[in-house]
Amino acid sequence: MQINKNYKNLAQSYLFSTVAKKVAEFSQKNPDKKIIKLGAGDVSRPLCKAVTDAMHLAVTEMGTKEGFHGYGPEQGYDFLRNKIKNYYKRRSVELELNEIFISDGAKSDLGNILDLFDKDNTVLIPDPVYPAYVDTNKMNGRNIEYIDANIENEFLPLPDKNLKGDIVYICSPNNPTGAVYKKSQLELWVKWALENKALIIFDAAYECFISDDSLPHSIFEIEGAKKCAIEFCSFSKIAGFTGTRCGYTIVPADLEYEEMNLNKMWVRRQTTKFNGVSYIVQKGAEAVFTEQGYAEIMENIEYYKNNALVMANTLEKHGIWYTGGIHSPYIWMQCPNNMKSWDFFDYLLENVAVVGTPGLGFGKNGEGFFRLTSFGTYEGTKEAMERIDKLLK
Amino acid sequence: MQINKNYKNLAQSYLFSTVAKKVAEFSQKNPDKKIIKLGAGDVSRPLCKAVTDAMHLAVTEMGTKEGFHGYGPEQGYDFLRNKIKNYYKRRSVELELNEIFISDGAKSDLGNILDLFDKDNTVLIPDPVYPAYVDTNKMNGRNIEYIDANIENEFLPLPDKNLKGDIVYICSPNNPTGAVYKKSQLELWVKWALENKALIIFDAAYECFISDDSLPHSIFEIEGAKKCAIEFCSFSKIAGFTGTRCGYTIVPADLEYEEMNLNKMWVRRQTTKFNGVSYIVQKGAEAVFTEQGYAEIMENIEYYKNNALVMANTLEKHGIWYTGGIHSPYIWMQCPNNMKSWDFFDYLLENVAVVGTPGLGFGKNGEGFFRLTSFGTYEGTKEAMERIDKLLK
Repeated sequence: MQINKNYKNLAQSYLFSTVAKKVAEFSQKNPDKKIIKLGAGDVSRPLCKAVTDAMHLAVTEMGTKEGFHGYGPEQGYDFLRNKIKNYYKRRSVELELNEIFISDGAKSDLGNILDLFDKDNTVLIPDPVYPAYVDTNKMNGRNIEYIDANIENEFLPLPDKNLKGDIVYICSPNNPTGAVYKKSQLELWVKWALENKALIIFDAAYECFISDDSLPHSIFEIEGAKKCAIEFCSFSKIAGFTGTRCGYTIVPADLEYEEMNLNKMWVRRQTTKFNGVSYIVQKGAEAVFTEQGYAEIMENIEYYKNNALVMANTLEKHGIWYTGGIHSPYIWMQCPNNMKSWDFFDYLLENVAVVGTPGLGFGKNGEGFFRLTSFGTYEGTKEAMERIDKLLK
Repeated sequence: MQINKNYKNLAQSYLFSTVAKKVAEFSQKNPDKKIIKLGAGDVSRPLCKAVTDAMHLAVTEMGTKEGFHGYGPEQGYDFLRNKIKNYYKRRSVELELNEIFISDGAKSDLGNILDLFDKDNTVLIPDPVYPAYVDTNKMNGRNIEYIDANIENEFLPLPDKNLKGDIVYICSPNNPTGAVYKKSQLELWVKWALENKALIIFDAAYECFISDDSLPHSIFEIEGAKKCAIEFCSFSKIAGFTGTRCGYTIVPADLEYEEMNLNKMWVRRQTTKFNGVSYIVQKGAEAVFTEQGYAEIMENIEYYKNNALVMANTLEKHGIWYTGGIHSPYIWMQCPNNMKSWDFFDYLLENVAVVGTPGLGFGKNGEGFFRLTSFGTYEGTKEAMERIDKLLK
């Protein structure tokens, strides 16, 4: 049996394991110091009441002969697809139910969608970036070219007429930088994709953090995008589903390349290699879009946004350049005094016991930058910023 | 953008849609006739109390600050992996925790595992077979060769010295035939795989139906299998999780091909393209293995087995050849009077309003055979058999 040799070309992912190791060592040497973690992308607020109420009802149903649900549709139940259809309508995006696929999370579908594409495509990936975009393509042996995101383009790279490629990844609001594309900027990407017969993989996992109504939440707010884009979203950040697992993927009904319909190909993939998301979880996700549910999750989002504001205020006070925070749970800051990413990591850990993520871990253009997340508690975030404020004085 | 052209080579899957269409037509013409469905592989008994109790507790936890669980380990929580480790111990199979991967169902992992293998492998698939084995490999463009399963080998094909191949699928107890390999027969397959440096994909989804203690539930009951096999199992049939979604995959720690460790490759695949199974679902699955839970699920299995017995008795009374039923929820019967699969389907539907699955839908060797499932209600199964008994007199 021959193995997939592309796995030999995968770099080991050292970022979070190195962070964990350094934190463990520091903790052992300084057992009295209270470490505050602003590093991971995981949420801290519990599921809201509307969601747990709905899941309790679903669990009870599943224990009765009349209410039991066996195999569900691989593409998800219509009760949830209808809610998502309406959610897009608020932004004037019209979707058909058969364009909406319920997933067990954006990460799964972002990887699995690659099943539909030939190995011989050139993939454009911004640097810095969410590392899974790179590794999932390397597993198939695709050629990757990086697009520079940097302080000059405010970490929002745009296509120019010389840019060539078949698949491009856009994450807006961005992980790790928190930068958000404007409508006019996404229009340039859609124009480029249509002209180049390329496909946009649009990661909208953080759309719920956008504070300015004029900024697009979905690539499908852009005219023509239904002919050149697939969008991935998740309940992880909007409703704290990181451990509950539910997301959705939008594959337009008319999306075609080389005379093959991608929506139909994805149906074939999912009905062959997936069996749908738990009924109980889908009932929980449905409750996110009830009046009560939406009010409750928005309270959590405001909570995290307030944490971001606390961080942003501290950075501004010290004249430190940053992006993100306002429309994103992430703050992407320049390390003060031209420090390198890992040096600043050590500096914060050793002096004030605060943990963030070194920008270099997201790509070469991340060197000299640092990511902070607002997913912690208000008390922890406030204390961390007070410590950093004192340190930088 | 170039699409994966292998999708063009996929045959449309007409089996269950054709069945549904014929049933709908019959129903419209005969609105007064009560149709009994013994066709689908879905369960009908609700989740047991131990499972729903555990899930209620988990849902409540997820709504509290202290009990909330965010991202879990992609490989699954140790509380569930430990229970599976113990479950294998009852059959004297020793597993390490890191050999056990919790999945959202056997179907997902049976497809996803192919990520680890080169396109240039020859895949051996028994005919008749669960159609997903074929399609998932065709999606990658692998060469498939079929192994004949038929009445002569009791639908349990064995390797001979001329057999060549890199990957072989074994499903025991089998879907669709319900046939179960003996230990001595699986030993031949393990010997063949080791000699040919081939890999066995062992689908154990129906192991819980085995009634005879001498029959193997796991390929790892066979010496040497940890050097040549991966096993897939599921809570769908043992505990009615078809709509709740949980399974597990065993990748031995020492499984190596071409100097690459498959366990490590699978960890890399899962941490990159998967984010674990819902905490709530894993807590439900854990409860399957409590004393109360196990007693409750076994009651359901006995219920289905009794249905199978009712079917078997009817077939024996009429001298109809069949396999399965005793160690499986499926009965695989020869169509009486040399009828073809679809003719017998029509004959049953039109004369006694009973629905089964034509064997031809599972491969060419299925022609002349018919699958009945025991997952219906006792009352429905009994009535269907009374109708068939009268019809065949």
